[in-house]
Amino acid sequence: MAQQRLRGVLSPVVTPFRKDYSPDAQRFVRHCKWLLAHGCSGLAVFGTNSEANSLSVNERIALLDSLLAADVDPSRMMPGTGCCALTDTVRLTEHAVKAGCAGVLMLPPFYYKDVSEEGLYRNFSEVVERVGDARLRIYLYHIPPVAVVGITKGLVERLLKKYPTAIAGMKDSSGDWNNTRTFLDAFAKSGFDIFPGSESFLLAGLRNGGAGCISATANVNPAAIDKLYREWQKPDADQQQEALNAVRKATGQYVMIPALKQVVAHYAGDPVWTTVRPPLTELTAAQAKKVIDDLKKLGFDMPGLAEAHAKAA
Amino acid sequence: MAQQRLRGVLSPVVTPFRKDYSPDAQRFVRHCKWLLAHGCSGLAVFGTNSEANSLSVNERIALLDSLLAADVDPSRMMPGTGCCALTDTVRLTEHAVKAGCAGVLMLPPFYYKDVSEEGLYRNFSEVVERVGDARLRIYLYHIPPVAVVGITKGLVERLLKKYPTAIAGMKDSSGDWNNTRTFLDAFAKSGFDIFPGSESFLLAGLRNGGAGCISATANVNPAAIDKLYREWQKPDADQQQEALNAVRKATGQYVMIPALKQVVAHYAGDPVWTTVRPPLTELTAAQAKKVIDDLKKLGFDMPGLAEAHAKAA
Repeated sequence: MAQQRLRGVLSPVVTPFRKDYSPDAQRFVRHCKWLLAHGCSGLAVFGTNSEANSLSVNERIALLDSLLAADVDPSRMMPGTGCCALTDTVRLTEHAVKAGCAGVLMLPPFYYKDVSEEGLYRNFSEVVERVGDARLRIYLYHIPPVAVVGITKGLVERLLKKYPTAIAGMKDSSGDWNNTRTFLDAFAKSGFDIFPGSESFLLAGLRNGGAGCISATANVNPAAIDKLYREWQKPDADQQQEALNAVRKATGQYVMIPALKQVVAHYAGDPVWTTVRPPLTELTAAQAKKVIDDLKKLGFDMPGLAEAHAKAA
Repeated sequence: MAQQRLRGVLSPVVTPFRKDYSPDAQRFVRHCKWLLAHGCSGLAVFGTNSEANSLSVNERIALLDSLLAADVDPSRMMPGTGCCALTDTVRLTEHAVKAGCAGVLMLPPFYYKDVSEEGLYRNFSEVVERVGDARLRIYLYHIPPVAVVGITKGLVERLLKKYPTAIAGMKDSSGDWNNTRTFLDAFAKSGFDIFPGSESFLLAGLRNGGAGCISATANVNPAAIDKLYREWQKPDADQQQEALNAVRKATGQYVMIPALKQVVAHYAGDPVWTTVRPPLTELTAAQAKKVIDDLKKLGFDMPGLAEAHAKAA
């Protein structure tokens, strides 16, 4: 893995499927390249918004390999590798490290609930030991609204003490600023990079030592989010934050993942992008229209996306 | 798959691991054979109590193959095959059908929460269509305390209407008799087999058209549970139920999975059985002692287990 830490705006890249639900590597590569050219510092492929847990281990490996084959820079990648099974997590993490990825975003094993901090410590510890590679950089993934099982302060303390290099940071998708603030206050100064899981907390995060954000909406609005990341000390930072919030609110007013795909489909002029794997369902026609209409009212656009797809097709 | 429906007492077989957390096929086969010889009608391998979601797809396939290689009858098997990823569920289900298993126990995809009934319908429907085998028998697995995502009455109605043969029944591990009763009243008469997820509801279930039970404790107490299954219309049925409840209470007083393994380890005289994969942790020594002491006070035993292991070793 690259020794340069990945910071800034990362997109949990939405995964395109064909109508038969098979992953579409070509569209995936196109979207990743568009994101990197339009403000994303990095690609948090195989996150929650990527429907990563709806993919098999082999499907994730094949998609990552397709990015590498298309010369997408692995030092700008932070693939999600945390699974319920230790052996799956190790396999995906090893593959990412060997590919030269900047880091990996790691969910805790999320099937069993009410597990102990000791059990979670053993899980992450075992992954570090088995991968056994000095290049490994793990970003712990806290998303209790979905995974239910979360990352606690005590767990981070124990892991950092034992693996100060391998444990590189976390993504906090609790949606709770008080939680993010607690982790920032406790760990940011030690070089542990904390990414809020939404650009709604980008400015507040940066003002308190945050490393950027890893946000669903960076799939559709990367340039504006990156602008605030670079200009957070400018006088109009709060106004920029408000404009980001408005786009996020319009996009996420129904269900986020099908909405992101709807927005990409619309601006790419490529309806197959609306496909989601079960158990998710696409937006209704009325919902889709409302999202696009609301975004248009805000003057929202995805410049170059249609051209990127037309050129590739 | 066998056309004879599997009914009676099924054990969600605990999965033995070596100290390095690798699955131990030999001990697994021994325990499965002991269970079938001591009251279990069937083996619900790869259930929640089997730590199935802590195993990779390949690990589950290898363990099932090791049972087949040891001449364990597939018409007495109901392996768990429901994963977060549709492609994993299809792969495991196809393997089970081709092996001749009586049925499969299928969790809904459990990563995304608050998913729609339509999304879950599409998931199960897609599995049936892709497997495309008339022998397929699916038992829907409802365990909201762990999976959070559950099986609703409306979902069963839609699936049964479209796939009256493939949708064969369900396991209800809600721990809520009112829920089990609702499903029994709605579907038991139509030949949809409902298994409560605990022998605590065995008698009540049988009195209301239930098909038996699929219960954690059937790993350690199969003969007594099977006795009540066969004798539920006898005058001492309620007393038998009370005795089963006492064993279950003693066993599950801390955390069920490590406790089951502790009990097997004790009666097999084989300490490696206590190993659990992270994020689970074994019982403390004091907890282990309390469980065994309480079971002994009840006159509990696992006859033939030590011999089965000694013979094989």
